[in-house]
Amino acid sequence: MAGSDLIELAKRRGFFFGSNGAYGGTAGFYTFGPRGAALKRNLEDAWRDRFTLKEDNHEIEAPTVMPEAVFEASGHLEGFDDMLVECGECGASHRADHLVEDATPIEDAETLSGSEIESLIHEHDIACPACGTPLAGQDVEDFNLMFATNIGPGDSKPGYLRPETAQGIFVEFPRLKEYARGQLPFGVTQIGPAYRNEISPRGGLLRLREFTQAELEQFIDPEDDAPPLERVSDVEVRLYPATEQETDGETYLDVTIGEAVAEGIIGSAWVGYYLGVAREWYERIGVDMGRFRFRQHLPGERAHYAADCWDAESEIDGDWIEIAGFAYRGDYDLSKHGEYADDTFTVFKRYDEPRTVERATVDPDMSILGPEFGGQAKAVGEALERLAERDPDAFDDDTVTLDLEDGETVTVDVDVANFSIEETTETGEHITPHVVEPSFGVGRTVQTLLSHAYTEDEVDGEERTYLDLVPEVAPVDVAVFPLVSNDERLVDLADRVAADLRDRGSAVSYDDSGSIGRRYRRQDEIGTPFCVTVDRDGIEGEGPESVTVRERDEARQARVPVTDLAEEIDALLGGDDTTFDDLLERHDSVETDVETA
Amino acid sequence: MAGSDLIELAKRRGFFFGSNGAYGGTAGFYTFGPRGAALKRNLEDAWRDRFTLKEDNHEIEAPTVMPEAVFEASGHLEGFDDMLVECGECGASHRADHLVEDATPIEDAETLSGSEIESLIHEHDIACPACGTPLAGQDVEDFNLMFATNIGPGDSKPGYLRPETAQGIFVEFPRLKEYARGQLPFGVTQIGPAYRNEISPRGGLLRLREFTQAELEQFIDPEDDAPPLERVSDVEVRLYPATEQETDGETYLDVTIGEAVAEGIIGSAWVGYYLGVAREWYERIGVDMGRFRFRQHLPGERAHYAADCWDAESEIDGDWIEIAGFAYRGDYDLSKHGEYADDTFTVFKRYDEPRTVERATVDPDMSILGPEFGGQAKAVGEALERLAERDPDAFDDDTVTLDLEDGETVTVDVDVANFSIEETTETGEHITPHVVEPSFGVGRTVQTLLSHAYTEDEVDGEERTYLDLVPEVAPVDVAVFPLVSNDERLVDLADRVAADLRDRGSAVSYDDSGSIGRRYRRQDEIGTPFCVTVDRDGIEGEGPESVTVRERDEARQARVPVTDLAEEIDALLGGDDTTFDDLLERHDSVETDVETA
Repeated sequence: MAGSDLIELAKRRGFFFGSNGAYGGTAGFYTFGPRGAALKRNLEDAWRDRFTLKEDNHEIEAPTVMPEAVFEASGHLEGFDDMLVECGECGASHRADHLVEDATPIEDAETLSGSEIESLIHEHDIACPACGTPLAGQDVEDFNLMFATNIGPGDSKPGYLRPETAQGIFVEFPRLKEYARGQLPFGVTQIGPAYRNEISPRGGLLRLREFTQAELEQFIDPEDDAPPLERVSDVEVRLYPATEQETDGETYLDVTIGEAVAEGIIGSAWVGYYLGVAREWYERIGVDMGRFRFRQHLPGERAHYAADCWDAESEIDGDWIEIAGFAYRGDYDLSKHGEYADDTFTVFKRYDEPRTVERATVDPDMSILGPEFGGQAKAVGEALERLAERDPDAFDDDTVTLDLEDGETVTVDVDVANFSIEETTETGEHITPHVVEPSFGVGRTVQTLLSHAYTEDEVDGEERTYLDLVPEVAPVDVAVFPLVSNDERLVDLADRVAADLRDRGSAVSYDDSGSIGRRYRRQDEIGTPFCVTVDRDGIEGEGPESVTVRERDEARQARVPVTDLAEEIDALLGGDDTTFDDLLERHDSVETDVETA
Repeated sequence: MAGSDLIELAKRRGFFFGSNGAYGGTAGFYTFGPRGAALKRNLEDAWRDRFTLKEDNHEIEAPTVMPEAVFEASGHLEGFDDMLVECGECGASHRADHLVEDATPIEDAETLSGSEIESLIHEHDIACPACGTPLAGQDVEDFNLMFATNIGPGDSKPGYLRPETAQGIFVEFPRLKEYARGQLPFGVTQIGPAYRNEISPRGGLLRLREFTQAELEQFIDPEDDAPPLERVSDVEVRLYPATEQETDGETYLDVTIGEAVAEGIIGSAWVGYYLGVAREWYERIGVDMGRFRFRQHLPGERAHYAADCWDAESEIDGDWIEIAGFAYRGDYDLSKHGEYADDTFTVFKRYDEPRTVERATVDPDMSILGPEFGGQAKAVGEALERLAERDPDAFDDDTVTLDLEDGETVTVDVDVANFSIEETTETGEHITPHVVEPSFGVGRTVQTLLSHAYTEDEVDGEERTYLDLVPEVAPVDVAVFPLVSNDERLVDLADRVAADLRDRGSAVSYDDSGSIGRRYRRQDEIGTPFCVTVDRDGIEGEGPESVTVRERDEARQARVPVTDLAEEIDALLGGDDTTFDDLLERHDSVETDVETA
């Protein structure tokens, strides 16, 4: 399909559009219209069902504004940068690495240093795309991508819009572990806005300044916790491992999760588990599995602390787009917060059996050290304690030599230390959990679903466009039409039918304007799976009141008694395997197109 | 109930807590833990069901960051201020009007001017609450409550975190009206974060810097559109009109919506309609109607453009808290954006019948005016057009006298004007819709629900605390316990029961730790309506496998066959009127407390 047709449809039918158009537009911000907001919400609910409820994880909701200290610890303040070059002539801002990629064969300019980029701009005579002035000589600067603000009056409390929802989970770990009663493994999820103040936002929902993430932080004991891999070991996945990318051949590996983990192609069983869960979930919500793959990060691409990373990628308009990331992050996140914050980011891991350990202790005799070392006596005592911990064997001699904090070296009689080895029984130890993070881009998934659902065909000799969205995510479950709006009997019945379906929890769209054909096309374009039309045949015949039900993909129709309608629609929309063929076995097919008013 | 007990319970049980505690806390920001996030989401879903789906309104999702131009038009840049005074000694910031209210009998210091507040600070020797230094002589300044940031690199594009979700709807009106096919009335809703950079945030969820709003903007034709008032005219409401507040008597008016609108107590039928809908909705979600009222804004309290405003208020810890506002905003919002933005914020209102109107036109003869007036000829022609529009009768004379733009007066022969009256047929006109805005605070409603649900009683001789939340909002629908965790038969059955309930869409909590009594108390404290216990009696007897079901409020128990369980739980949780009494008619009551392991 052509991307521009979809973008036009998305705007015309209320899926999404650039925000603030009345004020000239604001690059990097999109508004979800009524259809898009419904689709996005359905997608989020499907994610919640699979990654929170079915996994028995905990979902939280944290603020989007966070104080600076959080991002000092997380590393975002220091390292969440893109390379910026500004035009000396017109003042336009550009991503310097993208300019280099556009003008040279280099593909990953992001990994180069600022001065290397500056040289390349000079070498290749790269000019400002806005005004054509050469950019050589302009500084390439690191631009931090967090939106900055101030919390409260004055500028004494800098705050930032969170660049990922994850930090709102990590900083609350000391409390969240209490809710899990201190037991690993446990997972915490969050769905919500995140922000990147992009230098050059891209079109559509692909690179926005404000976007929605659905993230899961799985906290595990790296030694003892294993995922329930058997649940997904037979799931077949298409992998694009780093080795294949490096040889420049686009060869995929079609394997099961079980094989991929057993053979070490996927390094972490936890990552493998979530790849399997995600693969099934993507299929369930309607991603075209012929346009989907898991791509492993190249060694240079992943963060230094991440042991193994895979992206879920979907194909849109010929490009492969990252729609989720799955990273084994080790203890990086919790260790950093443990170091910077004033709380405990560990859990107490109880041993199966208490363990007896020997511990060297000293009890320095200050009545001797005091007179001998005066003001230094305390420092000598502390040095004895450090030495006992580090090298208990040193106390085998008659004297011990100590390095004081101030650099001085002193020697004392070993008896002064009152050295002893004590046996203690320990019931467990404090460990820093490791983190496995499946992180989903919600907007990018919306765009994938629309792109993969977009279909053009011919019905009754006319070209039409429809979205073959699965009912679980379609913005409208069922549309209800009175054939004409000036026949009260039809309108009354249509009202009753719509109210009944709505009461049973379906998202219903009521439409009484234009010809039936036009109304079908409108619903086709937003992916409504079923349309119910109240016509005169259904109220004028001998039998019970009836309506026609029309399915979207093949435009087949059946006549269904009103008394059966809600139940039949529930079955068609529900998770069970009822198909329109089943409906046609139970009810009359309507061969011709409904009369158009 | 004591507020501090609830706040402690909220923190301990994972409803909500101050954010970033590990970093010393950030005033004005709260994180919803697993239970609170679930309760909040259920509340939002209930709101969506009533105010979006049942009303057939359109829900959208707009960005939280918006450009400055939007807030120039909305008036927030100029007027969204609080009065700030800073201590000259310690630098602490305070809301100047609150200090005055604390130190004087004045109740609405917000309505005073900055210089009046400065005088009062001086007069009453008001000191800094942080360090005790007198504040007399310090400037009282307007502090804008929007969080400011910059969009993209540099500071050339100021942006703000939206102070209300409404602006994201108003600015997109030109597109939203297309989705409604240009037909009034239509309503657009949004649920999402909004921000106020409070000088002094208050405790709990009552005055936050980041909070969630659920807003409905109802666009109407003020002349022709009436709400379906009959649907709510019998709803009884407790009103606290402005007249009663002014006489200082706390006398309420208990009336029906129909009476209140008919008698003009509620000025707008649309506002009345939504007060009725809201009253029913609040009762449905569990707000205590004995601690609820609608308070009318005093004339000085409402914005100049708002014709009538009512707040929904709930009583928490003896204070009346605003939890929603209902305002008739006239054409203020759309007119302002129409004035500032480059798009059309009107709709075309088609007349029932085309109307014929007479229009005076002129076609000045420039071949005469040119030679006669030279450089002024164009101005003379324009003056003729203005005169024809303003006073067609002037062309009855032989000459007309014209006031030119530059102030000069000239007289011309009437023939030069080629004056004529033309009849034109008009099919309609462009009107600016009026806005009725029900605006709900989600966090404040969460706090209301918890406060009104908080109950202490005695069960089996022991004191307990429970939340009598309605099933629709309770964070957990049903808890499942194996009596002991070391009997595989019990654990297997409990797993099956939990998975089955989860598959049917219930929020299930599985708990196998501690005594059954402790597990019941845990669920009581988070308001879980039903607990299912898998015990030995249920698997060892002659009959089919069974479990006990226990309800929260009176701790009654029934023994239910596993095959009936899911359906019985669905009925108890569902919208129909099945009660635990019904369950006890069909199944055996369990008289004693389940054995505690």
